[in-house]
Amino acid sequence: MLSKNLTEIGKEGNPAYECWLNYRPVEAPIAEAYKALCRFVHVSGSSPVLNSAASELALGLESILGILPEKGQGYDGITLTTAEKTDLLTPSEKDQILPEGFMIRHHPQGFVIAGKDDRGILYGVFAFLRLLQLKTAPEAMNRVENPANMLRMVNHWDNIDGSVERGYAGKSIYFRNNQFIMDVKRLRDYARLLASVGINAVVINNVNVHYHETLLIDRYLPDVVKVAEIFRLYGVTLYLSINYSSPIQLGGLDNADPLDPTVQAWWCEKARQIYQQIPDLGGFLVKADSENRPGPFTYGRNHADGANMLAKALEPFGGIVIWRCFVYNCRQDWRDRVTDRANAAYDNFMPLDGKFMDNVVLQIKNGPMDFQVREPVSPLFGGLRHTNQVLELQITQEYTGQQKHVCYLIPMWKEVLDFDTHADGSGSTVKKIVGGKLFPQKYCGVAAVSNIGDDMNWTGHILAQANLYGYGRLIWDTSIDSTALAEEWIRLTFGESQKVKQIITEILMNSWPAYENYTSPLGIGWMVNPNHHYGPSVDGYEYSAWGTYHRADRFGIGVDRTVQNGTGNAGRYYPENAQRYNSMENCPEELLLFFHHVSYDYRLKSGKTLIQHIYDTHFEGARQAEQFKAQWLELKGLIDEERFEHVLARLEIQVKDAAEWRDVVNSYFFRKTGIPDEKGRKIF
Amino acid sequence: MLSKNLTEIGKEGNPAYECWLNYRPVEAPIAEAYKALCRFVHVSGSSPVLNSAASELALGLESILGILPEKGQGYDGITLTTAEKTDLLTPSEKDQILPEGFMIRHHPQGFVIAGKDDRGILYGVFAFLRLLQLKTAPEAMNRVENPANMLRMVNHWDNIDGSVERGYAGKSIYFRNNQFIMDVKRLRDYARLLASVGINAVVINNVNVHYHETLLIDRYLPDVVKVAEIFRLYGVTLYLSINYSSPIQLGGLDNADPLDPTVQAWWCEKARQIYQQIPDLGGFLVKADSENRPGPFTYGRNHADGANMLAKALEPFGGIVIWRCFVYNCRQDWRDRVTDRANAAYDNFMPLDGKFMDNVVLQIKNGPMDFQVREPVSPLFGGLRHTNQVLELQITQEYTGQQKHVCYLIPMWKEVLDFDTHADGSGSTVKKIVGGKLFPQKYCGVAAVSNIGDDMNWTGHILAQANLYGYGRLIWDTSIDSTALAEEWIRLTFGESQKVKQIITEILMNSWPAYENYTSPLGIGWMVNPNHHYGPSVDGYEYSAWGTYHRADRFGIGVDRTVQNGTGNAGRYYPENAQRYNSMENCPEELLLFFHHVSYDYRLKSGKTLIQHIYDTHFEGARQAEQFKAQWLELKGLIDEERFEHVLARLEIQVKDAAEWRDVVNSYFFRKTGIPDEKGRKIF
Repeated sequence: MLSKNLTEIGKEGNPAYECWLNYRPVEAPIAEAYKALCRFVHVSGSSPVLNSAASELALGLESILGILPEKGQGYDGITLTTAEKTDLLTPSEKDQILPEGFMIRHHPQGFVIAGKDDRGILYGVFAFLRLLQLKTAPEAMNRVENPANMLRMVNHWDNIDGSVERGYAGKSIYFRNNQFIMDVKRLRDYARLLASVGINAVVINNVNVHYHETLLIDRYLPDVVKVAEIFRLYGVTLYLSINYSSPIQLGGLDNADPLDPTVQAWWCEKARQIYQQIPDLGGFLVKADSENRPGPFTYGRNHADGANMLAKALEPFGGIVIWRCFVYNCRQDWRDRVTDRANAAYDNFMPLDGKFMDNVVLQIKNGPMDFQVREPVSPLFGGLRHTNQVLELQITQEYTGQQKHVCYLIPMWKEVLDFDTHADGSGSTVKKIVGGKLFPQKYCGVAAVSNIGDDMNWTGHILAQANLYGYGRLIWDTSIDSTALAEEWIRLTFGESQKVKQIITEILMNSWPAYENYTSPLGIGWMVNPNHHYGPSVDGYEYSAWGTYHRADRFGIGVDRTVQNGTGNAGRYYPENAQRYNSMENCPEELLLFFHHVSYDYRLKSGKTLIQHIYDTHFEGARQAEQFKAQWLELKGLIDEERFEHVLARLEIQVKDAAEWRDVVNSYFFRKTGIPDEKGRKIF
Repeated sequence: MLSKNLTEIGKEGNPAYECWLNYRPVEAPIAEAYKALCRFVHVSGSSPVLNSAASELALGLESILGILPEKGQGYDGITLTTAEKTDLLTPSEKDQILPEGFMIRHHPQGFVIAGKDDRGILYGVFAFLRLLQLKTAPEAMNRVENPANMLRMVNHWDNIDGSVERGYAGKSIYFRNNQFIMDVKRLRDYARLLASVGINAVVINNVNVHYHETLLIDRYLPDVVKVAEIFRLYGVTLYLSINYSSPIQLGGLDNADPLDPTVQAWWCEKARQIYQQIPDLGGFLVKADSENRPGPFTYGRNHADGANMLAKALEPFGGIVIWRCFVYNCRQDWRDRVTDRANAAYDNFMPLDGKFMDNVVLQIKNGPMDFQVREPVSPLFGGLRHTNQVLELQITQEYTGQQKHVCYLIPMWKEVLDFDTHADGSGSTVKKIVGGKLFPQKYCGVAAVSNIGDDMNWTGHILAQANLYGYGRLIWDTSIDSTALAEEWIRLTFGESQKVKQIITEILMNSWPAYENYTSPLGIGWMVNPNHHYGPSVDGYEYSAWGTYHRADRFGIGVDRTVQNGTGNAGRYYPENAQRYNSMENCPEELLLFFHHVSYDYRLKSGKTLIQHIYDTHFEGARQAEQFKAQWLELKGLIDEERFEHVLARLEIQVKDAAEWRDVVNSYFFRKTGIPDEKGRKIF
């Protein structure tokens, strides 16, 4: 009988904790067909990852089919194998499987789950179990899947004191009170969740690396080794965020100048020490010269100098340096209408294109500002042609409701991935670029800021589990449809009720548009309370140093970013996009106020004035929130009481806070313009 | 030779630390006259306070005159005595001296400093030394001084973790890391400062009493005993802020209902324990049912029930309960234009007038809101006719520049004290009420929130020392003139340069008007960044739950608090004031926006429109800040380098931040109204 190490992985009997791996029995008649094909499991070889794959398979089969398969031989039952080792696949079939990819092949006696490598097998097993849970016909399980992205990464902004920067799901699962918690069970369960959706890399600590976190590559290294071991079982490579000034704090040097040979030598030796302990460490993530973090600017050097110095130290060990492009002047004068934060990353990094070593990867936020509910895509995508690139998304809902509001982010991310940069003519999409299909890149992919914490349900809001699930699935297969993904997640998470699927899908698919409706209009962003970023404050960032302005006056609102009269940001894009963005008429309306300062009486394509559009969308958004609650109430009895009540409580907060957004934003603009709502609704 | 215990009190050689007790030698010829009169000191009796008086006299004489007087006999030299014990005063002279008061009487052989009691003698000594330092002619020293107020109190908002709520001068001098620091020297030096300006009571912990502070009347009591001992030497009575829910936390009771006999018994026993340790404890300060603090409302009881229950427990020991009236709904809906925080204290406490025991004192903030740069006086003053009352002022500059800006508060406090409530006809001033001269009160006086911390200069900004000095002097003698007080403080603090006196006096006297100019206009208040309350945010509290609104729209600004159309707040005053406040024409213009919603084109008495007034005052205020700096620069070389540079650095911050206020407020209103500045100055 195949071991599934039930004491170590798997069922808690708590569906909120189990998330989409909350396996439920599949019923006859299809269960009988499955059982006939799954009586034996044959595992070819042994490795930590392969053993996890076998254990996961055993756990899944027992939970879904109620069987404990025997160890098999020959072709009968399920074969887990690397492609090269099996003769069940033809050479041309094998050729289709690329690194970390897999093939599932149904045959009369069972299935072959063949990976290019052990990670591929593990992903194949999770895919197979998902297909079982979704009652897929055996012959429909046949597939080859190769990941669309090489690096599929999650970034934790966890601090070693246990806090999570921009975390809304409790405290850190890694740290507490300046120590590692080392809850092996929880970390392994987390690694399972990641691997089950194809995520292959994790950064465990905040990009803002303070005093104690700097010690992760020093005094805390033995703890890091243990965490890396756990993730390694599930094919998740560990990375660390490092402090650029480590040579000063840890090495006692008097500077961290990247061109200083003593500094270089210090990093080389430090890398040697680290890789001696963790030979498969992925590398470093670095936030430098950004929001008051140290970096090469201190020494009159540029980002390439800084990144390459680290890259050189990691190169002998196969490590990479992921260097964030979130660099801007966070002490801007709000009176200054020339400086534009939207230009900052582009202007900082474009001159360095081609100057980075090939084990450096630039990590670029999806938009030029900071994870707003609506932004254009960063012009660095497509701009950079000779530099490894990772797209940075944010799963944690810093600006999208902080896991008190439901906001399904997959449609937003798909828009980003599908955005056509026109870098090499039509079709030069972001997904091609970060997938390494447009420009040659040694390393590329997608990273996202995690939304998990030590809440029992991981993500604070149970419906926010869909964002973690969807993130992994989407960056594995960027062609996937948002609605189909939602339905898949709902079925895995809540079971097979049609009504549950239909209602939650509607809620999820309407959630981002609703949030956009009742928050800041037409791409202008911000309008949140400073610091914590929750709830409305229209002028909250208007007179600040953060480069985040809406420039609303009595007559109009929006930032002129045109080439002709504005900050020139529109001109950072390739001509096809630049021309659209530059023109008030042709600009996509959802970005109108990002690129233009527009009069309140300007007529949108709908025929509405801008001010009326603001009023209407805010009334509509708050109404949508109420509708989510009403819809959810219809699910009473169809899902377990605990998750039902949990989500209901969050939706009640959302209803109340959406009304607050509606009233504050509408009142602000009514008071500023004096223009009444055409429909005579209550504005304060 | 008289002992002055030099190791325990006195000169540090650091004038910033010594404040106004920074004694300097007086020069001939007057020094010779003084010396002739001060060769001997005769102290009649002995007590902790009297001993302090003698030590202070010795220290002062040595520092100012360079003499160490002999112990005297008979009439030669200085006699320290209680009035009743001396035959140097006539019976009618003695009758003029009231509790804590003193008489200084010059005679051919020396001086008599006679107090009604030991505290009076101590205050007489400090007055005498002040007069010496100010080179007063001996015959001009003759005086009788009796305190205008019975309770002359300082409230510390210090937390036992060492933080100071609304503190801008470092950390607590009492606490650190949930322990008493017990820096005896520092505490004694602080007690000297207090006594030297006549302050006779101190509350050492924050009115917001959290878990650890609740333990001050429990586990920490032995430490409190030691602190009380230090203050006792200088005639400063110690009080404690207590947690209304102490019976639950400390007593393990299941409620704190004031009518529950078990709760009552618990407090009686607790009082007995406390007074066994500190027989002269002043009593308790209580913030209840305010800003989420517990209180009698929880049990359906009122404030009189709550206060009287505590008063009964303290009564056998002569203790009093000081009960704060800062009670309002801090979860108001900003949409609600009926509820008015300005009415809250009045509406909560007026129905209880006469229902409090006579060892209860209500502590009432000067204004109905919260220590804004400009507010009307609370209508509770004069409203309450049968209740002991203490006026609460704020020395710490929470809303007046946080000790980064110079803001001399004496003129503001004088306006409050001189305000005529018309409670018993014309002349029913606040100072008469809290001085106990209008209505019979067993206890009354003034309290103020301290501005000190463990910064070496005590108050963060050296010029803020003037506010602590002036507070004590003003509530001792409410007839004192603000300018004269400033000059007195400057001479004691910085010496005898005419130029120093003239320039700093000008800066101080213009500082409150300047701060008012560049912050929120015409009594509307707020417009600060939420939480920390520093710097401009015009809408910072506009859409909040705190009851703090300006209601600015495109057409006008201000809160309608009239009886006819508004919240009725103006009607809480006696008719003479109510009629003024109710009328837009007759309302004092500095309070215009507090009581009225006014169009931007409304003409003020100056002939300016409201909007032009806003622009002009903000340009003027920022200019004044620049002038302060320019004036200060003229003092280079005239005061010690350290204090010169310290103040200069603060003034530079003030110049910068006043410009920020100017630009944010002007831009906000320009953007909202579209009305340009008549003078065409730069608005953003």
